[in-house]
Parts: sequence; C-alpha cells; structure tokens
Amino acid sequence: MKKLINDPSNMLADSLVGVAAAHPELNVDHVNRIIYRGEKTKAGKVALISGGGSGHEPLHGGFVGLGMLDAACAGEVFTSPTPDQMQEATKVVDSGAGVLHIVKNYTGDVMNFEMAAELAEAESGIKVESVVTNDDVAVEDSTWTAGRRGVGVTVLLEKIVGAAAEEGRDLASIADLARRVNAAGRSMGMALTSCTVPAAGKPTFDLPEDMMEMGVGIHGEPGRHRVPLAGAASIAQQLVEPILADLDFTGGATIVMLNGMGGSPLIELYLMYGEVKKILDKARVTVARNLVGNYITSLDMAGCSVTLLKADEEFLKLWDAPVNTAGLRWGV
Amino acid sequence: MKKLINDPSNMLADSLVGVAAAHPELNVDHVNRIIYRGEKTKAGKVALISGGGSGHEPLHGGFVGLGMLDAACAGEVFTSPTPDQMQEATKVVDSGAGVLHIVKNYTGDVMNFEMAAELAEAESGIKVESVVTNDDVAVEDSTWTAGRRGVGVTVLLEKIVGAAAEEGRDLASIADLARRVNAAGRSMGMALTSCTVPAAGKPTFDLPEDMMEMGVGIHGEPGRHRVPLAGAASIAQQLVEPILADLDFTGGATIVMLNGMGGSPLIELYLMYGEVKKILDKARVTVARNLVGNYITSLDMAGCSVTLLKADEEFLKLWDAPVNTAGLRWGV
Repeated sequence: MKKLINDPSNMLADSLVGVAAAHPELNVDHVNRIIYRGEKTKAGKVALISGGGSGHEPLHGGFVGLGMLDAACAGEVFTSPTPDQMQEATKVVDSGAGVLHIVKNYTGDVMNFEMAAELAEAESGIKVESVVTNDDVAVEDSTWTAGRRGVGVTVLLEKIVGAAAEEGRDLASIADLARRVNAAGRSMGMALTSCTVPAAGKPTFDLPEDMMEMGVGIHGEPGRHRVPLAGAASIAQQLVEPILADLDFTGGATIVMLNGMGGSPLIELYLMYGEVKKILDKARVTVARNLVGNYITSLDMAGCSVTLLKADEEFLKLWDAPVNTAGLRWGV
Repeated sequence: MKKLINDPSNMLADSLVGVAAAHPELNVDHVNRIIYRGEKTKAGKVALISGGGSGHEPLHGGFVGLGMLDAACAGEVFTSPTPDQMQEATKVVDSGAGVLHIVKNYTGDVMNFEMAAELAEAESGIKVESVVTNDDVAVEDSTWTAGRRGVGVTVLLEKIVGAAAEEGRDLASIADLARRVNAAGRSMGMALTSCTVPAAGKPTFDLPEDMMEMGVGIHGEPGRHRVPLAGAASIAQQLVEPILADLDFTGGATIVMLNGMGGSPLIELYLMYGEVKKILDKARVTVARNLVGNYITSLDMAGCSVTLLKADEEFLKLWDAPVNTAGLRWGV
C-alpha cells in the first residue's frame, strides 16, 4: 500500500490537523471530529449538518462555509460518525431556527443520524429535520444500504439548500426543498481500479487489468456488473443511459456533475465530460450548469461518476448564489 | 493501462472538447489547441501567455481567466507546444501593450517560446518579454533541462503576475515582477508511483512497492534519489529540508502550496499539509497563505510536491486580488 499517511489508524486525525492548518477560517473540533464554520450560526438561520465516513473528500468538510454546510461530522474512513458527534454538532450550530441533517443513504449513517436527531430534540429541544439522499441508480439494495445509495446529488443538494438557508427560510421549507432536490437527481459511477482502505492495507476488491466495474459504490461496493474495459465514449454511454432510463431530463434545465473518484486526473475528467455532454446533447437534455472535478471521492479509486439534476428556476437561482467553501467557491 | 480515454493519440483533442463544453466562458481554439478568455484583452493591459505539455492539469488551461492568464497553449501530453501555437496566441491576445510569456524551464518549451517571441516581434511588431521558471531544488540539470526545472512556482507566479497585469502595469514592470516571484520560490516533489503516458501505454518508470522517488520531475524524470517508502512526516521532512537549505524563508511571510501529482486523493494532501506546516512552524517560517490540492499534476502519478514562496506585501496584495479561473477562484 502506497499512501501519503503515517499510522493508518490515525489517517483521519492527521488529515484534520492539515485541514485546520490550511483553513484558519474554519473551526476544527479535533476531539469530536467536527468541522465548523468560523462564525456561529446567525440568529434565525436554519443550520445544515452533514457527515459520513471519511475518504470522500472534499465531501463533507470541504463544503462547510457560507452558502453550504454549518458543520460536517467526520467518521473514520468509510465508517459512519457516531450519534454523539452528530448530536454535539447539532447543539453547537443551532441558533434556535432548527437544524437540517443531510444524510447519505447508508445503513449506519441513517441509523446514527436518526438517533442523534432524537437525542437533540429530547435533551435540548432542538427542532431537527432530516433528508436522506438516494440518487444512485446502479443498484436497488447494496452491501451497505436498504434502497438506493446516496452519492453525487448530496453535493448539489448541500449547495442549493445551503443557499436557501442563507436566505432565512424556515426549517420546514428547507427540508421540503432538500427532498425536492434529492427527488430530481440521479447518479451512476464506475471504477477502473479499486480503492485501498488504509486500515485494510490492500485493495477492497480485485479488478482485472482488462475489466471495469459499472455502478460501483463510493466505498468500492459492487455495482451492476463487471464489463470489459472500454473507451471513454462507451463508458459515458454506460453511465448516462441508466440515468436517462430512470428519469426524464428533457424539457427543462439540468445541472451536470462529472465527478472524479480520487485517483483519476483532471485531464481524464474533462475528457469524460466532453463525452457525457455529447450524449446529453443527442438526448435533448439541456445542460444549464456543470461541475467537473473531484467532489465525492473514494480514496484513491480511479474512475468517475455522473450526476444529473433537473433544475427549475428556483434551483438555478440558489445554485448561482454565493458560496465560500474549500471545495466550491463563487460569488464571493 | 486503465484510463478514461478513447484513442490515446486523441487524448489532448478529446479533453479540449470537454474543457470547451464545461467552460462556455472560455474560447477554445481546437485547431491550434489554445485556450483563451472569452473576451479580448482590454486596451492597455499586458497579456499573459503560458503553455507546455498537457498532463499537468489544471495547469495551464485551468488558469486562464480574470486575474491570471490570457491564453494557454496546450502541447500533446508531456510535449512542448509548437512555436506556431505560441505565435498565434501572442498575436490574438496582444492589445498593443505587449505580451509576457511564462515558460517552465524545459528545453523544448524554452526553445519554442523563444522562437515564437522572435517571430511575433519580427512579423507583427509585438513586444514580448519572457520569464523562465526554475524553482525545483531537486536537481541542477535533468533529462529535459539545462539548469533547474520549472514546477510549482509557475502556478503562484501566474496568479501574482496576472493580478498585476489587471492593474494596468507596463510590460517591463510585469516582467520584472515575474522574475522576482520566480527568484523567491522553491519547490520539491516526490512520487509514490509512476505516471503512465497514454501513448506509451506503460508506466514511465519502475518503482518497487517499498520505494519512493524523492525529487521526481513532473514528467516522471528521475529525482535526487530513490529511498525506502516512509510515513507522511518523514516525506514532509525530505521535501521541506532541501527547500529550506536552498533559501532562507524566515523573517517574512511565505505562501505555501501542497500540490498533488494527480493520483493522490485530497485526504492525503491535507494530511501532508499538516506535516509540512509542523516543520515550517518549527523552522520559524510564517505561512501567510496556502493552497492544498491538485494544481500542477503529472497525469495519474501518486505523490505530491511542496512549493514555498517568500512573499512581501506586494506579492500578498496581488495574491489576494480577485481571480476567476477554473482552477483558482476567489474575490469574484
């Protein structure tokens, strides 16, 4: 295993030291492993929290800041954070207007965020709403999930709903918006290579040199099928077709994310975006906005995912609103 | 070879299609393989051009836009662009105030940019100045270089000098500033794995599972020495010590870049930044600004580089000025 780490069991703690050093504008709670904005939630603003296992950076810590999250709870690599972490974050960020939990659909995350919400409500009287993202069309149930997995839409949702929270909307309408964003998004990913979890020290799965995994999960969970290695145009087709088969994206605007899994360089991601765009043009899907880069990764996995989000005027306006985080920044 | 590409010989052309699709705010000349800003250089503004072999993205195309470059010439992977490309870009971006060529110190780049400057001056009467970056402390001469190689400082230089050009400074003072930035910066890189050039189809060099290459070049050129694989703290030490031995960074402000080589995920880069910061704190180097991420890459190479730049008040003010590019964005 070749990684830029010290002791594999300290990877998360060591990386948070780096995050704190690189971003003095954030508050990093090293004991509870929570990344906060530098300033307290302003009165009347609904606070947004997300979190999950580490290894998906910049998700979620890289999306803490103006216009996105108020806090992110970091679990160990590919391991859910604890209810204690989530409860602590909920208490710290609540300004009295309530807190939205943004949860990717994995069994541990869902269970722990539910427990944290109950505890925060019971012990501190904090109003908590939750949205569970489940945009991955690859599989209906998986190793770690009942139902579809939550993947790329989580990034777009944190941006759009984060902007709405800055406007001072109330918790019920924020939660409603979050559910509408999730319902309008679909994703599909693929892997050229496995990732290697530091504590395991070896690749999560074996993938022959002439094969690729279509529909892979962000922890290296099995996808739909293993198929022969193909060119970028074919890969794009195999990613976009299942998405378009699942939801009609014609007749309106779409936000597209071409996301890298962590080990694929930017030149390949742009090349893939070009192939995806050709397919969308042919399918009469109108791309209004796009992101190309590493946003929800799987450690050092080589590969990519495609996320499409049907975006009405409201979504686009919130998408364009200012955002100031390590992972996404514009308008500021 | 596992890559998100079609025909390896079309990698650059295919990726430029993606860049054009993702960034409607840019003008991509697919024939000449030049990326321009969407708007012509305003009268009186010195134009900045850079370029080089592809495979280092976001460098240079990702740094075209307000506050950085006016154009970037893309060569084939790890291959210098031609004098024709550079001459064409020079003619297109000149507003009459002249053009600065920002050239990384590699034999082909230096020769071709020189020829382009002479042709643009002789045929079109355009004033051209050039700065050659040579910040890599690893080796004095290399496979592809007489003298030191130009690496990470190029990114910081394009940002700082780009901001000065927006202020309307004249060509002589822009060129002087560029040379001062280059003189104040030092870098050192390392590889955990080789990159694979698509046209070659196999790794550029062999690196055993228990070894790493210290001082590696951005094309996989040999570094100072091959040493046993070590932890992040030791790697940071082996990168920072040669830099501090080469130039005194105490007694002022420093801009630090922890750069990924393309195949290393962000969690590892933050972890490395934490280790680098500890060493700089101990050495009484004051970090005023930092960048952590993939800025000057080597295709899919796993590894990282450290760049330090001594920054006076002028450099910091220009660093903080607005920038609006695909690869760096703030203040807008």
